[in-house]
This record gives sequence, structure tokens and C-alpha cells, in this order.
Amino acid sequence: MLSPDALAQTLGTISTATLTSVLLKKGFANVFIRGARPLTRTLTGDQPRCSGRAFTLRFVPGREDLATPEALASPRSTRAAIEAMPAGAVAVVDAMGIGDAGIVGDILCARMMKRKVAGLITDGAVRDRRGVLATGLPVWCQGAAAPPSLAHLSFVGWQEPIGCGGVAVLPDDLVVADADGAVVIPAGLVDEVVESALEQERLEAWILREVEAGAALPGLYPPDAANRARYAAVCAAVPGAGSGGPATPAGAPRGTT
Amino acid sequence: MLSPDALAQTLGTISTATLTSVLLKKGFANVFIRGARPLTRTLTGDQPRCSGRAFTLRFVPGREDLATPEALASPRSTRAAIEAMPAGAVAVVDAMGIGDAGIVGDILCARMMKRKVAGLITDGAVRDRRGVLATGLPVWCQGAAAPPSLAHLSFVGWQEPIGCGGVAVLPDDLVVADADGAVVIPAGLVDEVVESALEQERLEAWILREVEAGAALPGLYPPDAANRARYAAVCAAVPGAGSGGPATPAGAPRGTT
Amino acid sequence: MLSPDALAQTLGTISTATLTSVLLKKGFANVFIRGARPLTRTLTGDQPRCSGRAFTLRFVPGREDLATPEALASPRSTRAAIEAMPAGAVAVVDAMGIGDAGIVGDILCARMMKRKVAGLITDGAVRDRRGVLATGLPVWCQGAAAPPSLAHLSFVGWQEPIGCGGVAVLPDDLVVADADGAVVIPAGLVDEVVESALEQERLEAWILREVEAGAALPGLYPPDAANRARYAAVCAAVPGAGSGGPATPAGAPRGTT
Amino acid sequence: MLSPDALAQTLGTISTATLTSVLLKKGFANVFIRGARPLTRTLTGDQPRCSGRAFTLRFVPGREDLATPEALASPRSTRAAIEAMPAGAVAVVDAMGIGDAGIVGDILCARMMKRKVAGLITDGAVRDRRGVLATGLPVWCQGAAAPPSLAHLSFVGWQEPIGCGGVAVLPDDLVVADADGAVVIPAGLVDEVVESALEQERLEAWILREVEAGAALPGLYPPDAANRARYAAVCAAVPGAGSGGPATPAGAPRGTT
Amino acid sequence: MLSPDALAQTLGTISTATLTSVLLKKGFANVFIRGARPLTRTLTGDQPRCSGRAFTLRFVPGREDLATPEALASPRSTRAAIEAMPAGAVAVVDAMGIGDAGIVGDILCARMMKRKVAGLITDGAVRDRRGVLATGLPVWCQGAAAPPSLAHLSFVGWQEPIGCGGVAVLPDDLVVADADGAVVIPAGLVDEVVESALEQERLEAWILREVEAGAALPGLYPPDAANRARYAAVCAAVPGAGSGGPATPAGAPRGTT
Amino acid sequence: MLSPDALAQTLGTISTATLTSVLLKKGFANVFIRGARPLTRTLTGDQPRCSGRAFTLRFVPGREDLATPEALASPRSTRAAIEAMPAGAVAVVDAMGIGDAGIVGDILCARMMKRKVAGLITDGAVRDRRGVLATGLPVWCQGAAAPPSLAHLSFVGWQEPIGCGGVAVLPDDLVVADADGAVVIPAGLVDEVVESALEQERLEAWILREVEAGAALPGLYPPDAANRARYAAVCAAVPGAGSGGPATPAGAPRGTT
Repeated sequence: MLSPDALAQTLGTISTATLTSVLLKKGFANVFIRGARPLTRTLTGDQPRCSGRAFTLRFVPGREDLATPEALASPRSTRAAIEAMPAGAVAVVDAMGIGDAGIVGDILCARMMKRKVAGLITDGAVRDRRGVLATGLPVWCQGAAAPPSLAHLSFVGWQEPIGCGGVAVLPDDLVVADADGAVVIPAGLVDEVVESALEQERLEAWILREVEAGAALPGLYPPDAANRARYAAVCAAVPGAGSGGPATPAGAPRGTT
Repeated sequence: MLSPDALAQTLGTISTATLTSVLLKKGFANVFIRGARPLTRTLTGDQPRCSGRAFTLRFVPGREDLATPEALASPRSTRAAIEAMPAGAVAVVDAMGIGDAGIVGDILCARMMKRKVAGLITDGAVRDRRGVLATGLPVWCQGAAAPPSLAHLSFVGWQEPIGCGGVAVLPDDLVVADADGAVVIPAGLVDEVVESALEQERLEAWILREVEAGAALPGLYPPDAANRARYAAVCAAVPGAGSGGPATPAGAPRGTT
Repeated sequence: MLSPDALAQTLGTISTATLTSVLLKKGFANVFIRGARPLTRTLTGDQPRCSGRAFTLRFVPGREDLATPEALASPRSTRAAIEAMPAGAVAVVDAMGIGDAGIVGDILCARMMKRKVAGLITDGAVRDRRGVLATGLPVWCQGAAAPPSLAHLSFVGWQEPIGCGGVAVLPDDLVVADADGAVVIPAGLVDEVVESALEQERLEAWILREVEAGAALPGLYPPDAANRARYAAVCAAVPGAGSGGPATPAGAPRGTT
Repeated sequence: MLSPDALAQTLGTISTATLTSVLLKKGFANVFIRGARPLTRTLTGDQPRCSGRAFTLRFVPGREDLATPEALASPRSTRAAIEAMPAGAVAVVDAMGIGDAGIVGDILCARMMKRKVAGLITDGAVRDRRGVLATGLPVWCQGAAAPPSLAHLSFVGWQEPIGCGGVAVLPDDLVVADADGAVVIPAGLVDEVVESALEQERLEAWILREVEAGAALPGLYPPDAANRARYAAVCAAVPGAGSGGPATPAGAPRGTT
Repeated sequence: MLSPDALAQTLGTISTATLTSVLLKKGFANVFIRGARPLTRTLTGDQPRCSGRAFTLRFVPGREDLATPEALASPRSTRAAIEAMPAGAVAVVDAMGIGDAGIVGDILCARMMKRKVAGLITDGAVRDRRGVLATGLPVWCQGAAAPPSLAHLSFVGWQEPIGCGGVAVLPDDLVVADADGAVVIPAGLVDEVVESALEQERLEAWILREVEAGAALPGLYPPDAANRARYAAVCAAVPGAGSGGPATPAGAPRGTT
Repeated sequence: MLSPDALAQTLGTISTATLTSVLLKKGFANVFIRGARPLTRTLTGDQPRCSGRAFTLRFVPGREDLATPEALASPRSTRAAIEAMPAGAVAVVDAMGIGDAGIVGDILCARMMKRKVAGLITDGAVRDRRGVLATGLPVWCQGAAAPPSLAHLSFVGWQEPIGCGGVAVLPDDLVVADADGAVVIPAGLVDEVVESALEQERLEAWILREVEAGAALPGLYPPDAANRARYAAVCAAVPGAGSGGPATPAGAPRGTT
């Protein structure tokens, strides 16, 4: 099992595309959060990748006796939830896909940054887009909406199982997000997924180089026996490239495009 | 009551997030136009904020005997509507959420700029994205679509009550738009909303500074009695900061995130 | 009939907005592919226009016995389809609007670039947004999604009639895409559409100049008899401007906004 | 031109399927109101067909200062609109497809029955399903919802052009509704549509009898020359069957399934 | 405060239309569960009304390690939840609006009937429509779907706050359902809502009789001073009709259609 | 392997709920066609179950040069497809979920009945609801729409792989439909699915009887060891009940609700 630091460093090199491929091979077809896109100034430019353990928050629809100013100061508020977040956690918020109100704005995001929260992922929206961007907190969401959460949402608790973007998320699942969106790795699968994903990244990097050198796709991607042998030879020639070499590059991974 | 100039200058400093918070406190929960996003080169960079009185336009679905070339030259056309727009107005267009056709392109937007229209807001789309951006008219819409309005829409009139993005808009309502989207302030509420919003902006600026200085959220946002007193002291120490000081910062505003 | 080279050069100067206007005048109201937006770093900046003959690919929903690793290596795979694409073709992919999985990633896009495919258009998503952008292939799609196509889609064939974004596309139809999206020109209409579109572009360029010079819209757009005469005079004065002059500027084109 | 009585009697024998076929042949492709289904105890059993001139009503989204109890008693209320409906009219209501609130309940429907309104068609919902059914008013809508219109809708006027279920409806258009839903016939086309539709009904009745007698479809539906001749002979043999006989049965109607 | 028995008997006479009107007057605009229709053989015929305290169940999206056969036998299963339901409760199930799988089938419904559960309300679907109808349990849902819940849903707990059809539901809220659908009455409001609703029902019954006798709507619905006096006289003449008479019939109820 | 007759007789006793449970256990999670409901007079009363081999038809979106009257008489028309259907087949039609036009009406359904087609299943709509019901053909669809297919759809072929309601369907897959909707059994799995399903039906029938006798759910559904033994005893006592007895009732089937 990887140490948290080693895990974080490793995950910094693996794309969500590869992680979903590996999870599909292991039988998990529904792990990609729908509708959570990077909130950035440009579409790909300036938001870092993000990974960490999920810290879940849950909303239900707004109701006039639940979504009140008093609720904001209660012990069961988003404020209290943020104060309970450990450093390095990724806040994952079930807003039921409601995009008419922002679940947090600049003040709450600024506090999450202070607490070293790694990122925020939701199937809802945030408010005050410019203010949130100014805090530097990496955010994946469906966009920005000016109205406060009280307009359409009632906060009910944290660290419960939730749905987010059509995916089940449990406290302590691992969440990784990049320019494509966010993927959930069930807690019990992290080590085996990371290991397979590293191997997959290496294989695909080699295939991409082959394509750039002019190779055609059939027989290469997925690799047939001849290409597997060629790849194995390359790995063997680069000792550090595969902790002993990809003895079984596994052929066509289920989950390849 | 503020003069139009003072109002415009003031609104240039208030976010739609704050305006929707204030409106919710006053009982207005449905004032944020859904699906109208800034049309810009980048997601936050280069589009100015926009505010002004609403000048409404209304479409119904296209029909072969209504959406004809002759209709474009008729006295009840988008062309005629644009010539009736006063300087400083914000055109708000009910396209019934239809995004398959552009309600205007570069030529009509160029004319609106010439007439000093402050901006264009619609739940539909525009066509010729590059041409529209070149005119410099600030636009909030669901995106760009190449087909002309005649393909799916029939124009029926202006300065009528309309729905836009799920919100009722009446002629002369005040409309404000920024990076989050567009909010409608009913005409009769403008002065009281602006006043409360200014106070809210000041309070939240102070809270944000406190958070950046390391303060935790509970008791601060919304502020408890102790923090209200601290904020009042700050305001009192900065004479210009609150036209006499926020005697009653009102505690937790309904409408805070 | 234009030579392929002349056609390509000409299409490089005509917007999809103008093409849809001309097609609507000829009775074609449903030619704009819904939901296929440019995949770029910024919203308008860095993606070239694209045009070429449609090379169609078709997916059906995923099924566990169809979407398998073996399928990726079969003779009826996306890989085989790509190897069949001629240089200059535009790949148009029917993903049934499913955005939960990427139909292709960086490797397949890199191979398309090698084969000089002109662009990729789909009502689905791609995966590995950064990797795809790095290949330089112009792509129009609904966005990025990390999961592989096998997670939700089964590939069934190429060069069949398909639906894409609510539009019928046949092999060898002409496809043109720009910042607004993608339009399909039925193969039999290409020459007449291009000719009318060129004339329309010239007329609208003149109208835009008039608007920028301060002209009002009524009588100008669409032009009345007086303005038609003025435009004809301008064309006559610039010999190259209309291969003999726009004898019949055609009044208000059906299809104008 | 048919007298109103003759028109009503004639329309009682023509299906909306046939009317949409005829309208499509005349170039009208968007005349079927989406989402307006018969409100009945069973799915086909007990609701009569309905036809008449459209009397339009228009809602915009609800807003707290517009949708008030006082509004219900104002001169611009649904109550006032109902009192303005002529006998035989069909009320067509633009609810913007909002199904969260009922536009009318038993009391308003009872009053429409008293005023001999022919039917009610909306893209929204009604409330108090049992009460509305008890009034006997034929209703086409998206279903029932308990909340009052004030909860989500503001009434703004009547006898204006509206959109209903994605279709433009003008005052005095003819509306016909049956078990399939509701179709709008533009006022200027009524006589020619009715005439063609009668002929189409006769032709299809003959084709159906042929199919029931065992004939195969190719050559029959649409009829080829031989079958057209057979049909003409049948018509000639039955003097009353075609007010002179269908000299030109018109071959394959555009608009046939 | 009414006894449970008296409450049940009273609620048997009040429609959800009236309850939502009364709740709107009290400031509750979002209490009607969207998408939960009666599951019956005919559309209005054979399903009784239903009311009782909410017993909530909550699902999140399906995940291969959560939605397993073992989960069905675990202490946190729908089976265990059903055994915890008190007689007279109404099961309200948050299925996140997912209609691709049935949350329960005939066996679970049969057990709920045995336990004297008053009804089942969900924004999801049930499976085995005929089997469920055979149990006699009154059900409101979006329809029937054959797949088991495990195909798309994971059960996570009961008696938590939930969202159902866009409405917040808390354990012990009162739920009432009829042919229009289901409404939630927050627990603290039950008595005052029931009292106002009874009065509203009486007033509307009188108005309906007036309409059936030929009265026009303006001045009657809502009643003006003259009609209020007439109604008061009627109430006074029928001693039992209003526990002392409707001294203040309150004019136009906010919430009337 | 069952003879076609034996298979048909057997399938007449198994619900789609059970079939989807069994298919999920075998790893097939996406086999239930979304949006295809029985077209009947009442919701459960009068439509027989239906099963048979899939005969697929495919539409793409309508285009003015494809969806023409001439197309209806061409060799690649719905008419030609119907003449190619074998007796006992179930027509499965990919209409891309478009419900604005009817894919067939009474005449085509009447011909399918003549050809002894077992049923029609589509994610689109039919036209002339009453006429179609009169033919007696069992139909599953999203509802009725008056416009002809030419208004929005172009027919392109038959016996190809298709998508229908989000599910892949191949020619000769087995399709079964009942009051819940329609399920697709991949051709290669039919025998094993039918066998498991029969056993599942027997087990669930016994469990339902236990529930009706007052048994609680935990330990019963799914059965624990004690209940499995009791069930085995019952089966053993009824010789014909399980062709030798359910030696391994398999515990909790994955796929149970």
C-alpha cells in the first residue's frame, strides 16, 4: 500500500481517462461524475489537477422552514462542515444537479483554501465566479449561478453516502479530477487501480509514440502479439520503466476507447 | 431615489450574487435568468458588466407563414424593435429557450452598439459568434447557433411582459449582468435593493478579509453578536464606509449561501 | 462545378451562419448539428475552420457482449474505420448524443491527423481533452468525458447514413464547421449553395459597413429597392466583386436572422 | 368557404393524423402541439373530439409581485379572459411547458362549460383532475398538478400570438384535437386543408380495406398507377363518395407515414 | 390539535389542490412532489386517496460494490426499512428521479400491505406493475420499469431528510396524495393547514355551485364584498357548516388558481 | 435448446421483471428499453404480452431530400421492410426517441397483423392511436403523435444493429414485452436466461405466498439457509414444480429488487 504522499505524487501523473479505463476493466462502469467541469478562466489552461479523499456534503431541495438564515448559523451548516474538513480532502457536494443556485461563494471557498482542502467537486453550481476563482481553490461544477443556496437548496449533513452527478460517493473514496472531469475510486480499490493505471499510462505512451512515427492502428491499439513483444523489449531496455517490466501487458484492456 | 447616473455607477460595484441575496431577503426567489452565460473569448476575461432598464422582445415558435423574408421588413420586426431601443437599455429576448437558431447576428448587434444599447440578454442563442464578439456588444446567451431565427422562431413584438430563462421580465425592470449571469430587479424595488446590496457588499468584504486572516466561519458568517460589534467598530472608524455606519448589519441575511 | 481545391478555398471564406441561411432559402431547415461545439483552449481563439466530405461512423448503446476488448481489435472497429478515411475527409460520428464516454482519445486523434483527416464532428464527447488538443485535430463535440467508449457505446460501422445532433448525414455530404458549430450540405446541393452563399456574404459585408457608418436597419436589412440599387452600384464599381455583378441581389433572403 | 356549422360537422370526421399530413404537403411541418394529451379516465374511451377557433391565453413565469391574490381579481386575469371567450372557441394556453402548477381547476372549467367553450388545450397542467373531469370540458394537457398557477405562473393577457407545445398559435387559427393530440390549422388555410383532408381520408379508408383483404403494401400505399385506377373506379361507382369523384387522387401524399 | 384518527378522517375530505393553495398562502411554494402519479388500472378510477406520516427511504446511484445481493440481506436494506415502518405511515422514497429500475416489486409491496403501510410515494419507478397492483398498496410513482433496483440504485438508509420529486421531505412530515399527486405538509404546520383547508373547501364548494347556477367569475372567484356577504349568510344559515361561520372568508386566497 | 414453440409458451409465463433480474446476474445491466410503454385503452387491462425475435428498423432525422413521398414507394421504405418481416417477429424500431411524429399508423399496423407480426416496439410514437388500437397489434411506444414520419424522420434500413430506448438491439435477439415494458435478451443467452428465469419465478412465487401468510422479509427475501431448506422441501414435495427440484436455489439473486 502506498503512503499518502507517494499516492498523491503518483496520482499526479495519471489521467482520469486512464483511471476510468482501469476501473471498467475491474467491473466499475459508473464512476465518472456527470456535469462537473473545471471552473477556470480558460478551458484548459490554468487549473491544476486535484486528488484526495472524498469529504461529502449533502443538500436536499429548499424549503422555507429549512433554508433560513438561522440554518446558516446552526451546528448543521455548510460552515460547520467546512470546519470539519481535514487538510488534503476533496469536498464532494450532492446538489442533486440543481444549477439555479450557488452552493458556495468566495468566502466559503477562501476558508476551504485556508484549511488546505484540495478541491471542490459538485453537480451543482458555485456563485460569484470571479470571487471563487480569486481564492485559487480548484473547483469542478456545472457552472456559476448568482442566487444563494437558500434560494433552492437545504443543507442536511456531511460525511454520508451521497450521489453526485449520477455516481455514488462514500466518505473516504478517492477522488481524482483533471481537465476531463472527476472520477471516484472506491476506497478498497485504490492500490490495485493505481498500479494498473501506471502500467496502462506507460503502454499508451508507447503506442502514441508509435502512431506519431506513422504506425497504423490495427494490431497496435490494442497490441497484437508482435507489438506486445516489441513493447516488452522496450520496457526491458529501460529498467526503471516498469518495476521489472510489463510481463503481461494484458492485451486489449477493457476500457480502451 | 438615485439619479440614473448615480444608479449606474453604483451598480457597477455590486455583484449579481449580492443582488440575488438581497432580493431573496425581500421575498423574491425567482429573479436569476437561467441559461444566459457571457459570450466571450475566455470564460471570465474580457466582457464588462452590464446594467440598464429592460427592453423586451418576444418570439414564438417558427411557422412557415409567419417567419418569412417579408416579415423581416415588416413594421413588427426585430429591426423595428432595435430602432425603438433607447440608449442605455438592455435588450432582453424571450426565445423560449430555443438554442437551434440565432436570434441576432453581427449586423443587428452592430446596430445595437451604434444605438448605445447596454447589452443583450436571451435564453436563446446568437449566430456568427466571431462577428458578434467583434461588435463589442456585451451578450449573455446560451451559446451560438448558425441558423437564422427564421428557421425556428417568429418574432411577434416588443415591450411586452416576457419570460426569459424561467423569469418574468417586464419593460423597465432593471437588469444587471456579470460573470455569473443576469438578474432582474423589479422596477419598484430598485432603490431599496441597491441600498441593502451596498451594505451587504461591505459586510461580506470585511468577512472575507477576516477569513483571509485565518478566522473560522462559525460565528463570523453570518456574524454573531461579538462579530457584529467588531464590524460596527470598523465601520465607525472609517467614516465614509457606510453613510453613518451600519447601525444594524442585520445578522444573517436570508440569501447568504 | 468547382474543383475540390477551389471548393476548399472558397469554403474557407463562408461562415456556417451564411450557409444555413442559404440552405433555408432552398427549403432545408434542419442542417445544423446540435451540441457540437469547438473543443479549444479558449472559446474562439485557436481552432481553424474545417470543411470536407463526411465520413460517417455509427455507435449504438453499449452492451456487455458487444463492447469488449476483442471488439476493439475486430475488423469492425473504430480503428479499422480510421484506416479507411481518405485525406481531407471530415469524420462525423453518431454517438446518439451520449456524453458519458469519450468516443476517441489522443491516440485515435493522432492517427487521424497522420491520415490528414480534416476534422472530427460528433454529438458525443471525446476523452483526454488535453491529449486530444495536443494532436491538433480540429474537433467539434459536446465536451470531454473520461470514460472509454466501451463504458456506454458499441461501435457498429462506417459510411452508413447516420443521425448526428438531430441532423441526417450521408456519406459524401459536405460538412463545414466554424466557431458556431457544424453544418451539413447535402452532396447534390454543394455548388448552388456555395454560389449563393458567396453572394450573400458580399451583400452582408456591405450592409455591415453601412450599419457601422450609421445607417438604420429598416430598408437596409433586408434592402429595399433604393438600397438594392445602391448596392448594385457599388458592385458594378468594383469589377472583381461579383463576377459580373449581383444582377439580382434577391432582396431579403429567407434565412436572414 | 364552408359555413361554421358545415365546417364543424366536417371536422368531426377527420383525424389529426390526416390533417398534419395535408399540412405537411402544403409546407407546414410544425403544427402539432407537443405534450398536450387528452385528460380522460381511460386513455381512449370517453373524451370527444374537439375543434374550433383558437382563443389564446398567455402566462409568463411566476414572480412574487405579479402572481398575487389581487391579480386574480384584476381586469387582466384568467377570470376576465374566460368571460371574453365566445361560444365554440377552443382555449389554447401558453404555460411555457411548466407542469408544476395547474393553470385552471374545476371552477374555471365549469365556467368555460357554461360559456360553451369547445375545449381547453395547454402545454401545462390542470389541477384537481377529478373536479375538472366532472365538469365535462374536453381538456388536452400534460397532466395534473395540485399547486395553483400563482405558485409558478403569472397571467399576462389573451388573444395574443403565443407558443404552445413548440407551435405558434394565433387568435382565430383553427384547432382540432383528438386522441393523438392537437393540431393548429393557420386561419388562411382552413378551407383548402379541409378539402384535401376529406379526400385523403377517403383514399386511406380504401387502402385500409385493401390491406384487410390481404393486399401487400408496395404499390398500394402510396398507390401506383394501377391502384390509382382501381381506386378511381371505386369512387366513380359510388356517386356520393367524392362529390364528383377524386379525379386526381394525387398519388403519394407528402405526409404519409 | 386533532387526534390522529380525526386528522385522518378530515384529510379524507381535502384535495391536494386545496392543501397546496393553503400552503402557498403560508409561504410554502415547493411542496408538491414532481413526477409521482397514481399507479392504477385507469387514470382516475380505482386508487384510494392516501395520507399519513412520512417514513423516508434514500437511494444513491448504483455502484458495483454497493448494489450487491449481499446488500439485500444486510441490516441496511429496503427489507429492514420496511420492517421498521409503523402502521399508517406513508413510505416516501428518494430515487433521485431515476426511472430505469424499479425500487420495489410485488413482494415488498405485499409486505408493506401486511404491515398496514398507508401508501408508497417515489420519484422513481416500481417493477412488476401487475403484481404491485395486485397487492392493493396505493402507489404514486413515475411509472413501471422491469429492472431491479440493483441495476441502477444503491439503498443507503431510512428516516433521514430526503429530496423526492424536487421537494424536501423530513421524517414525520404529513403526506397526502390523491389523483393529482402528492403534497408534503411540514410537521409543524399540520393543524393550521388543515383548518384553513377545510374553510377553503367550503368556500370553493359554494363558488362552484354559484358557477353551475350561471354566475360569472369576476367578483365571485375570488369573492368581492358583496359575494362574501352572501357566502357568510349561507354559512350562517347552515349551523354545522363552519363551526360558528366563516367570519372572515379572507377574500382572495393566495394560492387560488 | 427449446423449440420455438416451447420457447414461446415458456416465455408466456415469465415477467420482464424476472428476465431483467436474471440478465443482471449474468452481467447484462442495460437491456430494458426506456420509454416504450404499452399502447392500450387502459393501463393494464387489454394488451397481451408479446415475445419473438427482433426484426429491426432504423430511422435517421428527417431531411427534405430524403423524407419525400417518393421515398415511401422506394425499395428502402417501411413498406418494404414490413413485407420482409417473418411471422412471429417483433418489429423493433429505432426512432432516436423522437416523439413528434408517428412512425406508423393504422394501415401499416394492419398489414403487420396480416403478416402475423407478434408486436411493435419503438422509442418513438405511433399516429392515429384509435386506428392502431383497432388493428389489434400489440404496440409499445412513447405515445401517439399525429404528424407523419416524413415530418421529422427518414427511414434508412432494416435488420441492422440499432439503438432503441438506450439499448442495443441486434437482429434475432429475443424481445419480450409486458405491462412494464420491453426487454432484450441477446440471442446467445436465450436458453440459459429462460431456465434461470423459470426457477426465479418459482422461488419468488413461494416467497410471495410466505409474505401473504405473514412472514417478515429479513431472512426470507433473499432466503437464508433455513428458508432455502424450507423452499427445497416444498419443491421436493411437488414433483412437477422444478424438473427434479431446485437443487441450488442460488441464494440471493443479484438482480432482485
